[in-house]
Amino acid sequence: MTYNVAILGASGYTGAELVRIIATHSSLNIVGLSGNSKAGQSMAQVFPHLRHLDLPVLTTIEDMTFDGVDLVFCALPHATSQRVISELPAHVKIVDLSADFRLRDPEAYEAWYGQPHAATELQESAVYGLTEFYRDEIAKARLVAGTGCNAATGQYILRPLIAAGVIGLDDIILDLKAAVSGAGRSLKENLLHAELSEGYSAYAVGGTHRHLGEFDQEFSAIAGRPVQIQFTPHLMPANRGILATAYVSGDAATIHQTLTAAYDAEPFIDVLPKGEYPSVKQVRASNFCHIGVVADRIESRAIVIGVLDNLTKGSSGQAIQNANLMLGLPETEGLMMAPVYP
Amino acid sequence: MTYNVAILGASGYTGAELVRIIATHSSLNIVGLSGNSKAGQSMAQVFPHLRHLDLPVLTTIEDMTFDGVDLVFCALPHATSQRVISELPAHVKIVDLSADFRLRDPEAYEAWYGQPHAATELQESAVYGLTEFYRDEIAKARLVAGTGCNAATGQYILRPLIAAGVIGLDDIILDLKAAVSGAGRSLKENLLHAELSEGYSAYAVGGTHRHLGEFDQEFSAIAGRPVQIQFTPHLMPANRGILATAYVSGDAATIHQTLTAAYDAEPFIDVLPKGEYPSVKQVRASNFCHIGVVADRIESRAIVIGVLDNLTKGSSGQAIQNANLMLGLPETEGLMMAPVYP
Amino acid sequence: MTYNVAILGASGYTGAELVRIIATHSSLNIVGLSGNSKAGQSMAQVFPHLRHLDLPVLTTIEDMTFDGVDLVFCALPHATSQRVISELPAHVKIVDLSADFRLRDPEAYEAWYGQPHAATELQESAVYGLTEFYRDEIAKARLVAGTGCNAATGQYILRPLIAAGVIGLDDIILDLKAAVSGAGRSLKENLLHAELSEGYSAYAVGGTHRHLGEFDQEFSAIAGRPVQIQFTPHLMPANRGILATAYVSGDAATIHQTLTAAYDAEPFIDVLPKGEYPSVKQVRASNFCHIGVVADRIESRAIVIGVLDNLTKGSSGQAIQNANLMLGLPETEGLMMAPVYP
Amino acid sequence: MTYNVAILGASGYTGAELVRIIATHSSLNIVGLSGNSKAGQSMAQVFPHLRHLDLPVLTTIEDMTFDGVDLVFCALPHATSQRVISELPAHVKIVDLSADFRLRDPEAYEAWYGQPHAATELQESAVYGLTEFYRDEIAKARLVAGTGCNAATGQYILRPLIAAGVIGLDDIILDLKAAVSGAGRSLKENLLHAELSEGYSAYAVGGTHRHLGEFDQEFSAIAGRPVQIQFTPHLMPANRGILATAYVSGDAATIHQTLTAAYDAEPFIDVLPKGEYPSVKQVRASNFCHIGVVADRIESRAIVIGVLDNLTKGSSGQAIQNANLMLGLPETEGLMMAPVYP
Repeated sequence: MTYNVAILGASGYTGAELVRIIATHSSLNIVGLSGNSKAGQSMAQVFPHLRHLDLPVLTTIEDMTFDGVDLVFCALPHATSQRVISELPAHVKIVDLSADFRLRDPEAYEAWYGQPHAATELQESAVYGLTEFYRDEIAKARLVAGTGCNAATGQYILRPLIAAGVIGLDDIILDLKAAVSGAGRSLKENLLHAELSEGYSAYAVGGTHRHLGEFDQEFSAIAGRPVQIQFTPHLMPANRGILATAYVSGDAATIHQTLTAAYDAEPFIDVLPKGEYPSVKQVRASNFCHIGVVADRIESRAIVIGVLDNLTKGSSGQAIQNANLMLGLPETEGLMMAPVYP
Repeated sequence: MTYNVAILGASGYTGAELVRIIATHSSLNIVGLSGNSKAGQSMAQVFPHLRHLDLPVLTTIEDMTFDGVDLVFCALPHATSQRVISELPAHVKIVDLSADFRLRDPEAYEAWYGQPHAATELQESAVYGLTEFYRDEIAKARLVAGTGCNAATGQYILRPLIAAGVIGLDDIILDLKAAVSGAGRSLKENLLHAELSEGYSAYAVGGTHRHLGEFDQEFSAIAGRPVQIQFTPHLMPANRGILATAYVSGDAATIHQTLTAAYDAEPFIDVLPKGEYPSVKQVRASNFCHIGVVADRIESRAIVIGVLDNLTKGSSGQAIQNANLMLGLPETEGLMMAPVYP
Repeated sequence: MTYNVAILGASGYTGAELVRIIATHSSLNIVGLSGNSKAGQSMAQVFPHLRHLDLPVLTTIEDMTFDGVDLVFCALPHATSQRVISELPAHVKIVDLSADFRLRDPEAYEAWYGQPHAATELQESAVYGLTEFYRDEIAKARLVAGTGCNAATGQYILRPLIAAGVIGLDDIILDLKAAVSGAGRSLKENLLHAELSEGYSAYAVGGTHRHLGEFDQEFSAIAGRPVQIQFTPHLMPANRGILATAYVSGDAATIHQTLTAAYDAEPFIDVLPKGEYPSVKQVRASNFCHIGVVADRIESRAIVIGVLDNLTKGSSGQAIQNANLMLGLPETEGLMMAPVYP
Repeated sequence: MTYNVAILGASGYTGAELVRIIATHSSLNIVGLSGNSKAGQSMAQVFPHLRHLDLPVLTTIEDMTFDGVDLVFCALPHATSQRVISELPAHVKIVDLSADFRLRDPEAYEAWYGQPHAATELQESAVYGLTEFYRDEIAKARLVAGTGCNAATGQYILRPLIAAGVIGLDDIILDLKAAVSGAGRSLKENLLHAELSEGYSAYAVGGTHRHLGEFDQEFSAIAGRPVQIQFTPHLMPANRGILATAYVSGDAATIHQTLTAAYDAEPFIDVLPKGEYPSVKQVRASNFCHIGVVADRIESRAIVIGVLDNLTKGSSGQAIQNANLMLGLPETEGLMMAPVYP
């Protein structure tokens, strides 16, 4: 059985990544593509790498019809997303890739995003899209909120440890290295090749990155008490990938066992043998997440390192994985492509 | 129906690329992997990005059995290849990715490769693997010789033009820009990141690159008289991709029409609208080849630009495409993955 | 003796490169910096790598005083430059880094730049800034027009050959590979890291690049008859450097001798031993230009390859070299820094 | 006054960087270059970017004479260095860039480097080369041990804080991002462009990196009690530069004041305004080190970020700075070149 899907905001990198994956997905059929600033153009004009595909021309959202559309991927900017989604017809399922429905608490949303939420009742019903931990709710949801790509990486390495109580909760440090496509196709000086190549730096230092809202919400819920981590992202001279280095207190062997057990049956999350740790390159352009654990020379201190591709497992791959569940398809359908190396 | 395949020389980049593609190919099953210097290791040790796959452990070629193997991909170094292939059992079909069987003339082989050919009778029967131009022979062949990646790129843009007689034959210049994976996973100083990043240079300048042997053989055969082109490859600070810029005499409109007509029905070769030309990035990690034609300001001079991914369409993707034909499978099977961007 | 200089348009890459070089130049003193869109900011805000220097705050051009200024470097956009320069006080010498005064013929200017020249009398008196070929005129000039960076590279490898009559004039092809800083610090999609890294493509294909105006002017003047070359620039995934590959007819040994003799006494132009050719990386961040000559396998065909750093020898280094001459300083002062490698 | 210097191990990156800096240093004269595996070659053959310099041909160390040599830079591999240095004539001053004399304690040396020290009496007299903290001893020393490049970066951001007692000593975490030239010009698979570009990963995870020996020695000495930090280096897809992110407990304002005061008079160490933090690119190819301090959202937690160029301030620039002191020259001579950007 084939389902009809539309992609709103198809002219950005996550939109293009959705199209890339769906191109070889046997059960999804793209019937609509919106891109307000590029309406009237073909995808081949916006993304020449997609020119072999027979795709609808980009339209405005206003010109798009949702009759016969089973599911919409919404890859719009934050704030725009909530407005558009609240006006979608009721028969349409939605996977939102923006930040608009990640935080369940309207006050937390306002605190991190600087404005009140405009669709609080939808916010309440949205399911957080970290597939491996919300699988059942996602399968039944109408609206799933894709996670932040940094937030996904941090949670894959920390959630099972917090849940199992095997690490200290008050001294977790997450030093994250993110490739530039996470910032989208936006014209900012620091994203220019001449500025970024041969350069790297931290950003949002001091606990100001919005994905902390997700960490706070999720880690506190799991722990049953407030948990705040220290989190510093760094911008890398690379296009795809996130590598997160977590410094935790706890026994490395226990940590490794806990993670191994937690992800034992997961098709996309792979815990390496104890003492090994991954390069971001080994999951490139794939839906896999690899995790390694190493004991530090200092007793009861461990380092946990996780990698994923921000555009795939961290965003559009995750979105397809959730859409598969929502449509009753096999969860891994269309997502088993091997990483591209080198 | 599923066919059993083995990969000889699986520990190099073309070997890994074969595995990547076969991972989502519905009719090929990997039953053997050789890698003499890494025998005894798993592919996950050699290429951690493949750790999610259930693959045979690497063995030596000597320890490999070919019972039940339908087809062998031979990704061995030049010269080794001819020796190994000449000893393979007769029931096995072979796609060779080395240079050993590209040249039909033993003297040409010796001239370009510096030693006599050790399997001249096989050399005679081998079919040149440029799929679009040898499709019928390939379907019937036991041994197909994969083309050089540079040689493939140059031929895609020039063959139809030479065949149609729409360009001059004595002033063809091919300036080619090739990414570093074409040089393999070899430990050479000029392939180090610190040497190559932010650097680029020509190599094999003056008509000494071995792929010229293929150009000479093919272009002369098409033209029915000796044709020699000027060819300068350049090494790019990038991992994948070849961009070839051809300078030819002829009418750009005619050239564009000739190429468009030649590739009209081809699933992987795409001629852009007249005046447009491709970036190497738009075919990354895919089996597509894009070609553009532009008229120069100087009358009767044109520029033809072609791009492909050296590891996919230029090597392992081509090999799968040929294997599909040899096994009676649909030619495009397993090869329709969209390019990875960005 | 120390001279006071001002830099107009100091907030771009050529402005920053001028400051970098002047920082260790013993006879130049920066007394004014303009940057209209960044007026009021310090250079450390615009370019944090210059924060150790004691520099004037950026002002608008209108707020800048030229009393006591001996020489102005004008790194403004094309068209703006001619307007600003025509209003500078008469005592000020000027090195213009824009395209405004490169073409001596007002009609050629209008043809290539799409609008009439607004300061034709200045245009007439301006000296073309290719130091090695206009040294005496530059020393006496008030206004020197810095060359295009691509135009400089092409001329270094071709001028002596055209002048000596040792190559054919009707089949010169120049295939050029340029790093991205040549495009400036401008916010364009194709200059983003995610777009350019792992990508490369031609641009201005077909004889439309404006630097062709310079080639036409200079080569025709040297040859004493119209000369038009074919010229295709390519954008490289790198920050600095130009590599130009010229395909010419002529005897390689004669070509090599001609170039070697022409540059024998030049401090910055270095012809490699016959048969060797340079990587762009070996002149990085320096004022040097390296040239190599190789005979092709085809008789009477040769390849000449030249490299320079577009921001240094191709632009700001050239500007300092010319300023040194105009101020009566040693030509090499401040310019002997070795290339940065790796 | 001019001093004669020799460079042992001139065929590596630190050797080339020494030559680059000395090329425009007004008081140092290179009279000898050794490179055992390249003996007989010119520097232009080994490093074409240095071809404009008039340099001695590379010899073996055995063939080198030290008559008239005032100072030797020893850029040899670890272990080789101690043997060679112990045989140098007494009149020669030495700046060693290897790890051989960094650790004062023979047992610590053996523990970190896996073999007993072969020149323990020299080890005792060697001065640790972190200029800003050992200035007086360096000026009087015969043998100065250049620091590890990672070790230098970590110490610049942490030493004044430990000395002033303004941070906790038992929970210091140093997450460091190092460019690939720190690994030298060695032929290792993970240093290939195809492996490293678009990739990044941790290495020596768990407290096994040898530079920890330096941290332990220095931090414990300053604190007057054992101090062990957690330290994880990461290999970046870039050629030059180290960025270190330190997570510490303490008051950010006090930390910022302490660092600002400590480096107030230093020519090369620059503390940014509070709340700002540096990119590694802003010190590229220079001898500067920039440091930033930010308060975390969690009370009494701060992030301190430092950047330097591993080949310059982290190695060869530091070596020249120390040589200047040892020879009675101005400390900054030859080292004030501005960073190269972009």
